[in-house]
Amino acid sequence: MLGPARNVCVWRFTWRRPSLRLFHRKCHMSIEELHPWFLGAYAENHDVLEDLLTEFLADHVYWRRNFHPECRPPVPTSAQYRDDYIEFVAELKQELFQLSADLKRSVPWFSPRYVGHMSSDLLLPGLIARVMTTLYNPNNVSEDASPATLEKELEVGMQLAEMFGYPIDESAEPCAYGHLTSGGTVANYEGLRNLIALEMYPMALAQASREFDGELGPMGPLVKRLTEYSDWELVNLGVDDIIALRREALGSARELHGPAGFERFRKAIKAARFEALGAVDFFRTHSELKPPVVLVPSTAHYSWEKAMKVLGLGAQHLLEVGVDRNMRMDVAQLRTVLEQCLDQKVPVLALVGVLGNTEFGTVDPIGELMNVRDEFSERGLHAPVHIDAAWGGYLASVFRAEGGGLVGRDMLKKKFHYFPSQTVYEAFAALGRTDSITVDPHKLGYVPYPAGAYVARNRGMIEFLTQEAAYVFDIEEESHQRSLADKLRHLGQYILEGSKPGSAAASAYVTHRVLPLHHDGFGRILQQTIRSCEYFYDAMPEFKERVGDLVNLTIPFEPDSNLVCLAINPRANDSLARMNCFGRRLFEHMKIDPKQPIQQREFVASYTSLLAERVSDERAAELLGELGIDPASLTPNPSDAEGQADHVFLIRNTLMNPWLLHEQNGKNYIDLYLDYLERIIRQELEG
Amino acid sequence: MLGPARNVCVWRFTWRRPSLRLFHRKCHMSIEELHPWFLGAYAENHDVLEDLLTEFLADHVYWRRNFHPECRPPVPTSAQYRDDYIEFVAELKQELFQLSADLKRSVPWFSPRYVGHMSSDLLLPGLIARVMTTLYNPNNVSEDASPATLEKELEVGMQLAEMFGYPIDESAEPCAYGHLTSGGTVANYEGLRNLIALEMYPMALAQASREFDGELGPMGPLVKRLTEYSDWELVNLGVDDIIALRREALGSARELHGPAGFERFRKAIKAARFEALGAVDFFRTHSELKPPVVLVPSTAHYSWEKAMKVLGLGAQHLLEVGVDRNMRMDVAQLRTVLEQCLDQKVPVLALVGVLGNTEFGTVDPIGELMNVRDEFSERGLHAPVHIDAAWGGYLASVFRAEGGGLVGRDMLKKKFHYFPSQTVYEAFAALGRTDSITVDPHKLGYVPYPAGAYVARNRGMIEFLTQEAAYVFDIEEESHQRSLADKLRHLGQYILEGSKPGSAAASAYVTHRVLPLHHDGFGRILQQTIRSCEYFYDAMPEFKERVGDLVNLTIPFEPDSNLVCLAINPRANDSLARMNCFGRRLFEHMKIDPKQPIQQREFVASYTSLLAERVSDERAAELLGELGIDPASLTPNPSDAEGQADHVFLIRNTLMNPWLLHEQNGKNYIDLYLDYLERIIRQELEG
Repeated sequence: MLGPARNVCVWRFTWRRPSLRLFHRKCHMSIEELHPWFLGAYAENHDVLEDLLTEFLADHVYWRRNFHPECRPPVPTSAQYRDDYIEFVAELKQELFQLSADLKRSVPWFSPRYVGHMSSDLLLPGLIARVMTTLYNPNNVSEDASPATLEKELEVGMQLAEMFGYPIDESAEPCAYGHLTSGGTVANYEGLRNLIALEMYPMALAQASREFDGELGPMGPLVKRLTEYSDWELVNLGVDDIIALRREALGSARELHGPAGFERFRKAIKAARFEALGAVDFFRTHSELKPPVVLVPSTAHYSWEKAMKVLGLGAQHLLEVGVDRNMRMDVAQLRTVLEQCLDQKVPVLALVGVLGNTEFGTVDPIGELMNVRDEFSERGLHAPVHIDAAWGGYLASVFRAEGGGLVGRDMLKKKFHYFPSQTVYEAFAALGRTDSITVDPHKLGYVPYPAGAYVARNRGMIEFLTQEAAYVFDIEEESHQRSLADKLRHLGQYILEGSKPGSAAASAYVTHRVLPLHHDGFGRILQQTIRSCEYFYDAMPEFKERVGDLVNLTIPFEPDSNLVCLAINPRANDSLARMNCFGRRLFEHMKIDPKQPIQQREFVASYTSLLAERVSDERAAELLGELGIDPASLTPNPSDAEGQADHVFLIRNTLMNPWLLHEQNGKNYIDLYLDYLERIIRQELEG
Repeated sequence: MLGPARNVCVWRFTWRRPSLRLFHRKCHMSIEELHPWFLGAYAENHDVLEDLLTEFLADHVYWRRNFHPECRPPVPTSAQYRDDYIEFVAELKQELFQLSADLKRSVPWFSPRYVGHMSSDLLLPGLIARVMTTLYNPNNVSEDASPATLEKELEVGMQLAEMFGYPIDESAEPCAYGHLTSGGTVANYEGLRNLIALEMYPMALAQASREFDGELGPMGPLVKRLTEYSDWELVNLGVDDIIALRREALGSARELHGPAGFERFRKAIKAARFEALGAVDFFRTHSELKPPVVLVPSTAHYSWEKAMKVLGLGAQHLLEVGVDRNMRMDVAQLRTVLEQCLDQKVPVLALVGVLGNTEFGTVDPIGELMNVRDEFSERGLHAPVHIDAAWGGYLASVFRAEGGGLVGRDMLKKKFHYFPSQTVYEAFAALGRTDSITVDPHKLGYVPYPAGAYVARNRGMIEFLTQEAAYVFDIEEESHQRSLADKLRHLGQYILEGSKPGSAAASAYVTHRVLPLHHDGFGRILQQTIRSCEYFYDAMPEFKERVGDLVNLTIPFEPDSNLVCLAINPRANDSLARMNCFGRRLFEHMKIDPKQPIQQREFVASYTSLLAERVSDERAAELLGELGIDPASLTPNPSDAEGQADHVFLIRNTLMNPWLLHEQNGKNYIDLYLDYLERIIRQELEG
């Protein structure tokens, strides 16, 4: 779906080269503040790491020794002098030296010379917590395998929820919840799976009430009998309404028909649910109902298509909403798609907004998206909203004031040249209105892999997800009577995964404790990354001039935060295919090659592609025009290998390293990067 | 599904109390060999851990410093004297001390006094590799984020494949592949998802060939045109046949109709696939076809029901096959279920065998299961086989000889009293014939969380799973021309998860290098655990006598390896409800309570429940008879809270700690555990 550009580019007309010193002064903070937070580009803070790891390693050792010290340890002190012991340790060392040697080929995430994928230096709190907890090896599937870390995982969920503006008062309803996953992909699966469980539930409830031989009375938001709701009404209830409806229906059954009637009703619901029947039989039973669709911006991460396939929903039911000139979901097109869904009575299982696109770094206009969503809810089509903030989620800390509330846009604007645009500001301000969010602590949270997270606004959701396992969970407990907070202590019952590392929870938890998720805590790191991006952007006019004899160059999309792409075309070339080829040759200098020592690299970047089908003709004409390329050469079906191509090759720079603006001899790493870029451009073109 | 007991209990009639010394001599090995392998119950080997961690921490530090040493480090040496630096470090220490204090409530997995869930001490190779790799933080989603560890993950897959007897010659077909997951649950999801992708593919292929305006000729195992295959034939092809069929069809299209025809055909297939259409539209298109079922033993892990729900297949399409008296899948009942499926033309998406049930430790008769599977394949119903070996998978190392091949059963039997039974031996011997396997290195692999794994016999499978992501994978490459091994270097394209820790791969890899997965390597640990279990079993007659004045006691199922359950009933009590209540009271002494210091515990066990619906009347009568309970009091629908119950409460002992047979003052930890059990029984009953 292509469409006209809507947003005005607020960055475009303000190119200027700033003085770094002035810049810092303007921002009321300096890079110095970050000095002790990370291990460091040269492991400058290694003594902190080493001291603390040694300390807590000893602490773990003595912990073991305090558990029944009355027994003689199974490994005698004489063991270490035995031949087999010595041989084993020698063999172990040999293998570890080999591993250590191999690891030297690792990607230098830590370095400000790495501006490629979404990884960087590690925060000391998260790194140390991760390592020390690994020694204890807790399993956060359930509290009896992780007495210390499961509560921390739930707390991390609440810390993230607060950052997003979700309600976090456990004594009130709704109250949010969240937990860690192995990564954003699984969190996205969980987002969809939870919405299926909720959105399909009212159909099962109505079905069960038809089969139920007792009265239940009017209920739900439309205050009528369940059997009087139309299918379309049932699949268009909001998350909070569904949670309330379930309680109302079960409560009514219990009240009017006693425990036996209640149990009968509960079994009838269970048997009628999507989860019991499977997609095929559920939609055979409800043959009037169309299978639901999921809406994403056309730039969404590939895991969304994977999710549709894995969950059996089908890739064809993933509807891509076109994007505007800056690769943000186009709200006019969203409206068109929703209008079609309403018209054709196609349920929308989820409307997915992307907060920090992984290819272009852009932020969907979540504020407008929520408004459109609400408009359509009024008209009978309710689309639950899940935000894929795997990349950009932590940026919310910049917008959150200490103690809650949003930082005003005016105050924010004082700290930056352009950031945040009105749309971006409204996107972050609207997060609290959405239903659930994916966020990756192992991306902009600067903690080690694996750490993704799923956060939902209303924890009542978990009542729809229960799994019973005799040996993990006590089947004796009356699960519906326990409070939701207690239930979550059996986390494995409510999530996709089973066994999971408590060390990931400890890592995120300690990080958030030391650097709270607000503007003046964790937000400072991300402010620094945005400033790096603005510096990069501001340096472009001069850089364009410097290399203007050789190439045309442009930043194709206004950066929304800290990721910026570059399109580069040799002067006098008008073939898109050749331009892409040139881009790839440049990238050869800056890519990770497992067969080469990383020390040979001066800078490491990544790349992405702007696909023909994702850009409007108008936008393509403008962009390729700037580069001196014939716009007609961008086509979804290239027939001419010399000229045409189905994509525009872009150098992609993720500017998340905290040290990018560190200055030496009057130059920071972005200056050095641009110098390097000039050098390889000249090398390629001047030979 | 209930049925008669079939297997004779080979352990039952041989109760005897062995001399530990004789026992060890008989086994040609001693517990001493394991001394240097683990950190130790009292962290006896802490100096090895500390030396190596310190060493490799420094190594990492200097690695960072060798990347462009010409630049001045961003954090100046003066930083550590600044107030803000000191304050940050102080705050960090404060939080880490708090974490360390909290972690002291962790479960003492390491101790031989812990015989509860499936976790134990950590192997030093895996622990050190895990920690040192965390510093480098590789992301095994793709090789350019993990130049050093992605190849190790694929190697771990091959190590596991070899242990299971899968083909591992990369120059021949079929060749296995495998990779890590966050845990067994996700590996089980992946097992089903991969089988959907394969098993539904031929339907799409036939559909596309009907729409295709060109000839393709006869092909496939039945050597006829695709359009001449019946739906039933198409959904009953074997994994290898489907892989060959796809290549044959695509090759034929390319040969007969050139690149354009090939492309048209390929697109038609893609559009007709289950993954594109979703379950609902796929089965609407093929309305004669019934939705597939998945067969599991009734004792299977709860993640299987979860998988059916998550994948949209529906819990009702999970068919539970009844188990025999020892909780192993009953092959007669399997035959009955398959007969019904054949009769009613219900496709079997997967036949799941469990190798090491997580509740009772028992092993399904995989050998017989494969024979029955093959029989039905001959008759037109083909059931692909996935083995859930999350728990028992590593036991295969006991059966694998160094350099390949199986260890003879006679030779194995010399090392144990009972192990392995004929059925268990045949189960492990048959693994190489199955299609795919789930196994958890973080269980019997003794490495830290998270580390699950999925292994498949034929890597041709991955051709059905591709995901394209512009920024992760080079769309320019002709993906179908790259070799499968190369493709796997873009691992994220073929698996459920995205970003994933390279540290997990390094951990399993180094473990398997130092302790190769065969009888005389890793197998030694597991031999030790089986011996612990046999010792426990042999100690029962005497223990029964000792506590015979107070309780009736029995081991309800013949242990297949290293997990053993106990049912305990106070003498003169004939109420199952009261017996369960007594069991829970005993368990109170041995459970993890997050609110109490673990030092108060003498031993920690776990529990499980034998559900009424999972046991035959005959077996229930026998078991409850031994305990002095009225068999009629076990019923799926208890009406009498005083007497009846829907389950039998069992104390569950996972005997995986390597030090259980360590002897002190003539007693090992199993003796001490039984002494303790006697003490709490007396305490509860004598007051």
